[in-house]
Amino acid sequence: MAILCRLHTAYGDALMASLRAALPEEELRPWPETGDPDEIEICMVYRMEPGFLGPFRNLRMISSTGAGIDHFLGDPALPRDVPLVRVVDEEFASRMADYVLCWTMFHHRDVAHFLAAQRRREWAYRTMRPASEVSVGVMGLGQMGGLTARRLVAQGYRVRGWSRTPREIEGVESFHGREGFGAFLRGTEILVNLLALTPETRDILCASTFGQMPAGGVVISAGRGGHLVEEDLIAALRSGQLRGATIDAFRQEPLPPEHPFWTTPGLVVTPHASSTASLETTVNSFRENVRRLRAGEPLLHRVDLDRGY
Amino acid sequence: MAILCRLHTAYGDALMASLRAALPEEELRPWPETGDPDEIEICMVYRMEPGFLGPFRNLRMISSTGAGIDHFLGDPALPRDVPLVRVVDEEFASRMADYVLCWTMFHHRDVAHFLAAQRRREWAYRTMRPASEVSVGVMGLGQMGGLTARRLVAQGYRVRGWSRTPREIEGVESFHGREGFGAFLRGTEILVNLLALTPETRDILCASTFGQMPAGGVVISAGRGGHLVEEDLIAALRSGQLRGATIDAFRQEPLPPEHPFWTTPGLVVTPHASSTASLETTVNSFRENVRRLRAGEPLLHRVDLDRGY
Ligand SMILES: NC(=O)c1ccc[n+]([C@@H]2O[C@H](COP(=O)([O-])OP(=O)(O)OC[C@H]3O[C@@H](n4cnc5c(N)ncnc54)[C@H](OP(=O)(O)O)[C@@H]3O)[C@@H](O)[C@H]2O)c1
Ligand SMILES: NC(=O)c1ccc[n+]([C@@H]2O[C@H](COP(=O)([O-])OP(=O)(O)OC[C@H]3O[C@@H](n4cnc5c(N)ncnc54)[C@H](OP(=O)(O)O)[C@@H]3O)[C@@H](O)[C@H]2O)c1
Repeated sequence: MAILCRLHTAYGDALMASLRAALPEEELRPWPETGDPDEIEICMVYRMEPGFLGPFRNLRMISSTGAGIDHFLGDPALPRDVPLVRVVDEEFASRMADYVLCWTMFHHRDVAHFLAAQRRREWAYRTMRPASEVSVGVMGLGQMGGLTARRLVAQGYRVRGWSRTPREIEGVESFHGREGFGAFLRGTEILVNLLALTPETRDILCASTFGQMPAGGVVISAGRGGHLVEEDLIAALRSGQLRGATIDAFRQEPLPPEHPFWTTPGLVVTPHASSTASLETTVNSFRENVRRLRAGEPLLHRVDLDRGY
Repeated sequence: MAILCRLHTAYGDALMASLRAALPEEELRPWPETGDPDEIEICMVYRMEPGFLGPFRNLRMISSTGAGIDHFLGDPALPRDVPLVRVVDEEFASRMADYVLCWTMFHHRDVAHFLAAQRRREWAYRTMRPASEVSVGVMGLGQMGGLTARRLVAQGYRVRGWSRTPREIEGVESFHGREGFGAFLRGTEILVNLLALTPETRDILCASTFGQMPAGGVVISAGRGGHLVEEDLIAALRSGQLRGATIDAFRQEPLPPEHPFWTTPGLVVTPHASSTASLETTVNSFRENVRRLRAGEPLLHRVDLDRGY
């Protein structure tokens, strides 16, 4: 019986080599060297096309190397009786907090203004509001959003959060559920999306959401492309309802060269680069779940297929 | 007897109006409506040319609305027997910490790379190091540097500090004096300058300092123009000894349009915009020292003229 590894390319061959070193007693097959599908007992997967998991009839664990697992749940070929686990780790979340802080400060401190003035050789002074006057609203307070909210608090921002179930985080004004969404948005100047993608959260970054924020807001989305109604974002930036945005995840990736996002004023595109679990984190969390599977112990960070994340 | 107010223009007429409201029993004269110089008992000053204070023979207090007071000490006409006070306030320091965090994250997270890739419509993924792998060295651990170092720690950076006398800050590896400078620099990837400008610190950002940092470092200077040897910064960026810099204070301000800094690759110019005390902070701290002067109580935040800051 073997482990099939369909890895992302960020760490190149080094990740496969580290997995081999960490699991010397396992037979690891780097995709597409699958061999006999009936011999595949564990699949470690980053991205895949629908149907990919269908042929593996003897699967006992599916391990996602990314945090988001919506592409697994959206696949009719997903074997729903096989446990699906994902990487949950402070180091992984910490890089995401870095991303969100970086772009929050970029928009708060008008970095684009200063860079543009420099291109004109213009000394264009402006006063800056302190972080304590800037309210940042974090949608999603899970692995990524929880740590991000705490880091924003530590930096002095006025932080509010929104989740499905009630969450208490020190220094964060919390809202939850559909009924709390409007009040959350009305006090949010910089909206950060770190939601799981489910049927309820699909298309949540839309005209109605932007319209409930005070005019001149900012959107930072490192969730999923499916959260964002792309035309609505462009329209909100054009009208001034939003003054800026940074988007890391798109409906189509890589974002095609003809996509209007590349040239929409106020919009910054980042190439799905907000956070990746480190090689060490990826290897360690996978090894631990393989060990647990072999020992018959409960797996870590198992996805609740009914809840959808 | 009267108070002469030579204010900076960031808050326009609003600052003068607030001062009048806060000190209704005082006669406030907005510069250049000085009147009889012998009637000036208190001077509230932001910037001035040398000799400005010479004519006021009945001065009892000089209040700087900025944090840096090197231009007072460098003026031979400064009456050295008159107390010189400055604004020291957490809110003032907090905006500076915002500035430093913003530009630290800008360089750490390769923002310039992503903005340039976007202009080429290019999906240019790169992995990001977590803050815990990035070492930031803060020169100056006073009002501005102390809070900035603590904020960098809260954000997860590896933080070291350098000051004249030993300073202990939780989570910060501290160095002091000339003898500690080399060891401080050798472990510093992102160098932040928040030193007072004195004869010992003039020209401290020079080729020798950059050369002691690991290659590919970054310099962020929000101290004074006199700290920086401008040609050395350009040379270090050209050679790759430094990969980036953000500079807020210059020998000549506004930076003239023909200055090479505007177009030096890797260098970001900000127009002395890192931090200004808020209108409220400026008014409150001035009012308190006027009250103390009238009541014969010790003044707050008095500059030590012999120490030079
Ligand atoms: N761009 C990248 O490189 C990158 C990297 C990592 C992660 N991500 C994305 O970041 C997102 C968050 O990841 P994570 O690991 O933090 O996920 P997580 O731990 O599962 O947290 C998901 C959060 O979304 C909330 N949520 C789910 N459905 C909701 C609803 N209907 N209404 C309100 N809140 C709802 C959950 O609320 P409860 O707290 O009440 O359960 C939870 O707080 C995912 O979309 C993931 O794909 C992107
Ligand atoms: N660009 C702007 O908008 C802006 C705004 C505010 C401030 N600033 C500048 O920021 C700087 C810091 O202001 P601050 O209010 O924090 O000043 P501060 O409270 O007086 O602190 C000065 C720091 O410099 C250190 N220092 C002085 N001489 C030194 C030497 N020879 N070797 C090593 N360290 C030395 C001091 O060491 P000890 O701790 O041992 O005394 C102290 O930590 C000033 O240059 C100010 O002009 C700029």
